[in-house]
Amino acid sequence: MNDAVPFTTDDYAARMARVVADGRAAGLDGVLVTPGPDLVWLTGYQPTAITERLTMLFLTTDRGPTLLVPRLERPDAERAEGAPATTLVDWPDGADPYTAASSLLRPAGRYGVSDSAWALHILGLQQALRDSGYSSLTQSLPMLRALKDANELARLAAAGAAADATYEQILGVRFAGRKETDVAGDLADLLRSFGHEQVDFTVVGSGPNGANPHHEAGERVIREGDAVVLDFGGLMFGYGSDTSRTVSVGEPSAKLREVHEIVRQAQQAGVDAVRPGVACQEIDRAARRLITDAGYGEQFIHRTGHGIGVTTHEPPYMIEGEEQPLVPGMCFSVEPGIYLTGELGVRIEDIVTVTETGGLRLNNTERDLRIVE
Amino acid sequence: MNDAVPFTTDDYAARMARVVADGRAAGLDGVLVTPGPDLVWLTGYQPTAITERLTMLFLTTDRGPTLLVPRLERPDAERAEGAPATTLVDWPDGADPYTAASSLLRPAGRYGVSDSAWALHILGLQQALRDSGYSSLTQSLPMLRALKDANELARLAAAGAAADATYEQILGVRFAGRKETDVAGDLADLLRSFGHEQVDFTVVGSGPNGANPHHEAGERVIREGDAVVLDFGGLMFGYGSDTSRTVSVGEPSAKLREVHEIVRQAQQAGVDAVRPGVACQEIDRAARRLITDAGYGEQFIHRTGHGIGVTTHEPPYMIEGEEQPLVPGMCFSVEPGIYLTGELGVRIEDIVTVTETGGLRLNNTERDLRIVE
Repeated sequence: MNDAVPFTTDDYAARMARVVADGRAAGLDGVLVTPGPDLVWLTGYQPTAITERLTMLFLTTDRGPTLLVPRLERPDAERAEGAPATTLVDWPDGADPYTAASSLLRPAGRYGVSDSAWALHILGLQQALRDSGYSSLTQSLPMLRALKDANELARLAAAGAAADATYEQILGVRFAGRKETDVAGDLADLLRSFGHEQVDFTVVGSGPNGANPHHEAGERVIREGDAVVLDFGGLMFGYGSDTSRTVSVGEPSAKLREVHEIVRQAQQAGVDAVRPGVACQEIDRAARRLITDAGYGEQFIHRTGHGIGVTTHEPPYMIEGEEQPLVPGMCFSVEPGIYLTGELGVRIEDIVTVTETGGLRLNNTERDLRIVE
Repeated sequence: MNDAVPFTTDDYAARMARVVADGRAAGLDGVLVTPGPDLVWLTGYQPTAITERLTMLFLTTDRGPTLLVPRLERPDAERAEGAPATTLVDWPDGADPYTAASSLLRPAGRYGVSDSAWALHILGLQQALRDSGYSSLTQSLPMLRALKDANELARLAAAGAAADATYEQILGVRFAGRKETDVAGDLADLLRSFGHEQVDFTVVGSGPNGANPHHEAGERVIREGDAVVLDFGGLMFGYGSDTSRTVSVGEPSAKLREVHEIVRQAQQAGVDAVRPGVACQEIDRAARRLITDAGYGEQFIHRTGHGIGVTTHEPPYMIEGEEQPLVPGMCFSVEPGIYLTGELGVRIEDIVTVTETGGLRLNNTERDLRIVE
């Protein structure tokens, strides 16, 4: 895939219409979207910077899609692919944007708002319309962007293939004697060389650092005998990649072999559990059961997975308590791990999409323990 | 200055204590700070990414500073220089962070919250504590970070000196026949070479482009006879620089000479007006009066200045209506301009700090009109 098929104004219009309908079904008078991934997905518009100046897309049952922007930024907004499917309204510096916003809302309306909308803006709306009510979009419409269409799936597959090519290449670089940050730099270069326009994370957790799932990459020099957790991804054609493998620098210890095999089987069990209608939490349970049965339940300290799309972390989440049923078109990670403090960590992660019959991996590199130099 | 004096845990503790006291004086039971510039300033902590997982610093009258973090991010938070001055509390994946947060708040308390706190978090707190109330920090405590201590001033001075060195060097590069973006690239390279770790903006507004104060740098080829507005800055040792000069490519027109001299005098008048106790709006008035008297009042279309610190734009603002009195230790820009649509723009800007006796410039390059090639 050398290039992505562009999204059209009609694509954006269809997404906006779907959100209004989903909002109505969820008991909302509308959905209010501020700059960030939701706005990108709905309009293709991404302001140069997210600032204190209010930009908000109004998807309500009362009028067509309306995009309120600071007057200074109107020319930028007009250039967005989805802008022709909205009515653009601007407000000048010095005016109160919440007065302008509230004229687009019902006085006692119920609205969903972007999770990452600034508190400043929500408090401004609450003050302008005392009887209005707000709920976060992940709470009211968590699956807003969860169902991917064919064009989105093609981009996610391309991003996954680029991440796979990156893993194949990184197996050939030198690990022993180099810093984690050096290998992280290699991962970033490779992701870019295989087409990523943005690198979001390049985790290289060697030896004991691998036991901290939030470790990125540091000054530690990788040594013979280390397990190294590699977890990397970013955006390609605007859609995310995210894959993890754990490699052994030279011959693995018996402990590493044991733990790696458990995680490998747990990851397979998680993927095997994917099919339409199954609750998200069942994916977590399937993977976790294997690890718990092997005696490492306490060492699997995070959820099993997260959705992916225009961001690398989004709903649905594969976590105990998430009863959302899987639907064809959803895409998420399956990434169990075991973390032995002071010793090593192991994580294996693929992006999986839900098909009519089961789960299809978008990462397809070997999951057996590979030895590097 | 080859390196900055590190901030100590005591520095952070003192800032946090000051915020609690300021909050109390403003009628607040506390101040809630999410990741971003306020959190960096108060604790030195900057999470790798700002995500849906709640991280919040509680500076309340009921207990010592308390930093609530996702369990996975606790090791990162513990490494922050200011962390020892807080009590770290973590919440595990799957738990409700708003339950944890609300146990740190009064049921009917009044709290200031970071402007950029996610709506998700504010709505979560409002739901957990129905009688609690929130206001944005720029509304309730706009001067939160406005008073700089000696170490902060030293960093701002170093950033200013690096920006000055950048201007001295840019006077020697070729302007005529090159694109604005080329000169902008030179500015960015110079800022980095003089020690900036981050470049935030490099405005190069040539000829008619200079008349749009929001123009950054474009494809326009700079020509003999152009006025060129240069406005550049970024972060050094975590603190901001921001300076503007307007140069003439070859011999200036009589119009450019006239307008430049008015702006130079207006900028001087603005700086001369700085002294403790004077309201911010008086700085704006002092600069604006000169421009208005010269007949260009309608062409000075923005405020006269903004504060600077761990960000390059923050309160206090030098704008009509801002009655906040100046206090020694405040730092802000004084940057009047005149914009002649379709023709040219002129802006001159220095960062100024308030001393016991007046204003002290942190930018000290020549303000007379300089001719470049």
